[in-house]
Parts: sequence; C-alpha cells; structure tokens
Amino acid sequence: MEISQYLKKLKPEIDKAIEKNLPKKADRKWLSLVFGNLANEFKLSSVDSALLTPLWDFLDRGGKRWRPALFLLFVEAVGGDVKKMKNLVAVPELFHEGSIIIDDVEDQGELRRGKPALHRVFGEDTAINAGNFLYFLPLLILAKNENKFKKEVLLDAYQACIQEMVNIHLGQGMDIFWHKGGIKNPKEKEYLALSSFKTGCLPRLVAKLAVILSGKGKGLADRLGKLAESIGIAFQIQDDILDIALEGKERKGFGKAFGNDIKEGKITLMVIHTLKKANKRDRKRLVEILGKHTDNPKEKREAIDIIERYGGIEYARRKAQRIMKEAWREMDKLLKPSPAKEKLKEFSNYIIERKI
Amino acid sequence: MEISQYLKKLKPEIDKAIEKNLPKKADRKWLSLVFGNLANEFKLSSVDSALLTPLWDFLDRGGKRWRPALFLLFVEAVGGDVKKMKNLVAVPELFHEGSIIIDDVEDQGELRRGKPALHRVFGEDTAINAGNFLYFLPLLILAKNENKFKKEVLLDAYQACIQEMVNIHLGQGMDIFWHKGGIKNPKEKEYLALSSFKTGCLPRLVAKLAVILSGKGKGLADRLGKLAESIGIAFQIQDDILDIALEGKERKGFGKAFGNDIKEGKITLMVIHTLKKANKRDRKRLVEILGKHTDNPKEKREAIDIIERYGGIEYARRKAQRIMKEAWREMDKLLKPSPAKEKLKEFSNYIIERKI
Repeated sequence: MEISQYLKKLKPEIDKAIEKNLPKKADRKWLSLVFGNLANEFKLSSVDSALLTPLWDFLDRGGKRWRPALFLLFVEAVGGDVKKMKNLVAVPELFHEGSIIIDDVEDQGELRRGKPALHRVFGEDTAINAGNFLYFLPLLILAKNENKFKKEVLLDAYQACIQEMVNIHLGQGMDIFWHKGGIKNPKEKEYLALSSFKTGCLPRLVAKLAVILSGKGKGLADRLGKLAESIGIAFQIQDDILDIALEGKERKGFGKAFGNDIKEGKITLMVIHTLKKANKRDRKRLVEILGKHTDNPKEKREAIDIIERYGGIEYARRKAQRIMKEAWREMDKLLKPSPAKEKLKEFSNYIIERKI
Repeated sequence: MEISQYLKKLKPEIDKAIEKNLPKKADRKWLSLVFGNLANEFKLSSVDSALLTPLWDFLDRGGKRWRPALFLLFVEAVGGDVKKMKNLVAVPELFHEGSIIIDDVEDQGELRRGKPALHRVFGEDTAINAGNFLYFLPLLILAKNENKFKKEVLLDAYQACIQEMVNIHLGQGMDIFWHKGGIKNPKEKEYLALSSFKTGCLPRLVAKLAVILSGKGKGLADRLGKLAESIGIAFQIQDDILDIALEGKERKGFGKAFGNDIKEGKITLMVIHTLKKANKRDRKRLVEILGKHTDNPKEKREAIDIIERYGGIEYARRKAQRIMKEAWREMDKLLKPSPAKEKLKEFSNYIIERKI
C-alpha cells in the first residue's frame, strides 16, 4: 500500500483518538476530567465558543495527520505495543495543530488548509489562546494515561516533550528574526540548524515519544530522533518547493496561496542557493522582492524565475534526497528488519516526493 | 517587617535565580544547556534578538515578584528546604511573565509596567514567541534540577504545572468570550469560577509546586492550593479596584492606564454587583459604555460613577476580605504555627490592602 493510501486509511482512527481527548462539543464529563469540577460553573456553549468550536473548525479542515502515523510506525519498528498507543496518537498531532495556529498568527498568514487562517475567523485572541491550549493538552493526555506506563517512562516522555517544545521556540524565534531581515548572508549550515529547530522538533518529539513510551529508553529515542528530524527537514524543503513549484490545478489540496513564501520573504534553501550562485543583478532583485512582502503575482513570478535560473528547485530537491539517504545509513543499523521498517523507508521517500 | 519590604528585599535574589536560567545575553554554555549543541550554529546576537532582549526588556521593567516570594513562604510553612529551592523560584515567575506577555497581545493591551506592552515594542510575532517560550522554559528548569528530587516528586511537580497551565487557558478563553460580549447576565458564581481559572491558576501552581517539591505530597498540595487560589482571586479583585479607584499621583507605580478595564469592557465583580443593583437607566448606560471600548476619560468616569453609586467598590473590597477569611479558616488547621505561617497571613492581608 502506498503511503498516501496508508495515511488516508489511518486518518479516521487518528481523528477518533483526537476527538476522545478533545470533543467537538463540551460535555460535563470531559470538562470535569480535563479541568476539574469547578469548570461546571460554566455554560457548555461558552466553553465551545472559547475553545472547542475554533479548534474543530481547524481540525475539520483536514491535514494529513502524518505525525501520528509516523508515531505508530516508530512504535511498531522498535517492537512497541501499537494497541496501547491508540489514544496517544493525539499527543504529537495536537502539539502540531497548536503550533500552526500560533505560527499563522505570528506570520499573519492568510490561508490555511484552503480557508482563512484561524485568527481571521475567530480573532487573534481566541486563536492564540486556543492554540496555546493545544500546547498543554497533550501533556495532560499523557497524565490521563499514566496507568499504562511506569513512572520513569512517563517522566522521560515529559522531558522529551518539554525539550522539543523549548527548542521549537528557538527555531520559530530565529525564523521570525530572519523574516524581519535580521540575517544578511544566511549560510546553508545556519538554514539547516534553523530547520532542525523549527521543523525538526515535532518529528523528533514523535520518534522520541514512540521509543520512550514503548519502553526502549532515552538512548535509542535520541538516535531515532535524528531520523525523524531528517524527515522533518526534508518535509520542510519539499514544502518550500511546492510553495513555488505547484501552480493552477496542480495546487488543489495544497491549501496555501501560491508563492506565499516569496510574499513572506522567507529564506528557503532555494533562496540561499540562489543568493550564492546568482549574478549581482539577479541577487539584488531577489533580495528586493523578498524584502517588500509583495502579493503581486508578476513580482512573485519574477522571484521564482530567478530561483529557477540558478537551479534552486533542483538543488533543494537533491539536498532533501541526500539528507534522507544519510539519515537512513545510520538508521539501518539501529532497526531490525521488519515490515514497519520498510514502511518507514517508504514514508521517508513519500515525504520528499509528495505533490501535496 | 512589612510584606512590601519583604518583597523588596527578596527581589534581587529572585532576579538572580531568573537570570541564572535566562541570561540577559546568550552565551554558548547556556545555549548548549537549554537547546543542545546544534544551537551553536546560530549567532549569539540573533538569539538575543529573538528571545533574550525582548524578555529582559520586560523583566527589567519591574513587577513585584510576589509569586516566587509566596512560593518560598509555602516551602517554609510546610517545613521544606528553602535553600534547595533557590533556583526554582524562577519557575512560577516565568510562567507568570509569559502569561502576561501573551495576555497583552490577546487583549491588545497598550501599557504594561509603565511602558508600551511588549508586542508594541518588538512586534506581535516576537512577543508571542518569546512569551510562549516562557511557558516551557520553567518545565525545563525543573528537568535541569532533577538530581535534587525523587522521580515521583518530579513527576507530581510536572503534572501540577501541566494541570494549571491547561486550566489557565480555559480561564483566559472564558475571559475573552466574556469581553467579546458572549455573556449577557453574568452571575457572581460564574465570575468567581472564571477568576479561579484565570487568576487562580498560577498561585495554585505556586502552592502545589512548593508543597510537592518539599516532599509533602499531592494531598496537602491540593488543599494548600485552595488558599493560594483565594490569594489569586483576592489579588485580582483588588487589581480591578485599583484600576478604577486610583487616580492621578496615587497611580504612580501601578503601571496601567486609568480605567483600562472600562475600556476593555471587562466584567469585574464590581460591574456584576452594579448590574444587579442598579436601576434600569444606569444599568443600560453601564452596559453601553463597557460595550463601546471607549478611551474617552469622561465616559470612563461616568461608568465609574455608576459603579460607585451602587457601592460596587466597597462590595468588592468586602468580598475579597471574606474570601481570604474563609480560606484561612481551613488553612489554620493545615499549617502548624510558625513564623512562615504568620508571614503567609500578613501576605494575605497585603494582597487585599495593597495600593499598588
């Protein structure tokens, strides 16, 4: 089965686990379980308005749910108990959903999954608060499942989550700093470090959590975390490619506006490569367009033409492939042959070859 | 020694603990400790710009640091080891600082501690990201001090923090919902539940953390958490009173603009009392002014006059006193006589009598 099929098949199951922890409408039982009895003073409809309605507006828009799927693959690949983890798949997904809600506020994003970004529908205040709620709910879900795990295991799981949630804020902080023109001549090395923090954190969290909750220890968790990080970085590179390479009909299902990264002035690997290779005139013009946060299709097209002129897209594509290949050279030694391992390999390929 | 003196005396020590965990300028050692070695790819100055400079701009503005002081008092009152906790005082304070940075973005606050709110100085993106960073750094500080505590104690400490950080987002979510006019006839009971979530969370976290880290167990932590919650609610009531009762010179040191809550349309206990007692005309006018988010001094004065006409301020003052008194009726049985217990009582009085 192809990975895209595999993801489609898993999605309803993952969404069920999410809904179990975060219902579409508040009921007294959930309220007491999550917030304690005092929460019962509130009208259910007001809790819906404050948290659940906005969050499910967002969750119901789709999303590939590849992080929970990856979580289950890692559990299986290290010989963990997949059934025991059924409810826990919500953990990485909710961290992720929270982070993109917040990202969109920070970047003043317009579209997400084909609809206006959440803060544009419900206001910045509600979006930030609901997004931040998803930064802590996953940690509470771990607590509510504590009887399934040893105390040491749970403690390691918390610490892995906390470390990555600390890291992600360095990544995002650096990204904002870059956006705002804080960096003049970004090097590929710096870009990869930034990606490792910004996009690498959640996949790393996924792998670490899978290994730790499967009882296989922090050492293996850290090492498999490296593979997951590479998947995250490669995913980001491919995402950046799709932002400027998909046009018209092809774009259906991608959910973000064409050339959004150009508008945001994002320093992608393609941009770094182009700035290094381009002649003075092209370099100057690319910097200029990225700096003006334009939404003019002609200018965005011009920037993309410059990037293509120096093989930026092809360079990024090859880099993503190389990152995955190198990660697997290590991973092959760590994981015993198994169907899950094969699927992890397919998954790695899917990430860098996907069209949406 | 009076509590305001006690707080002044403690502040440098607390700030030292904060700075140990969150330096004013990044250095390689801190970067590696907090984010791991990969962070060393980043220029130190860019980490400063993204996180440390904005956060210390905020921290250096002052703030009473009463939550860390309360933390130490609880540790002492239950017979814990105050010295061992020196570094840990940063935990509740950083959660608090993060939460007000985020609150200000959500409420579009203008002033904080006498200066423009952080997002007005550094941009919403940087402020949100730096504020959210402070939601996780305290949890990492716990991890970095793990050798001081048993694993079970650390696990309980995490879970107490997580529960309160989940709760605070329900409180803030409800508050936003109320602000936006989502509630028509708020009852005092609902207001107190909201306060218990919004303002009660961090003091509760303070007490629970103090008791748990002192090795006195979750049971006592929950019960003393009730006292701390009352301190939080009473603090909020007094804060709301000061918002409209302090004028001119008296206001120096309060740090927020006069009548800001009127402008925000905040449903305070005073407003709830007035809406219940006022005649139809006054009620209508108060609702009208609160609904228009006005910054007109005359209109703000008019709203305050209506509140005063029905004894709103005096009612709130007495309510805060009653809340503290009732909390102490329980607490007296839980805590053995000690100087720390006496200081906790003084502290409780200070909270409801303070002028800034």
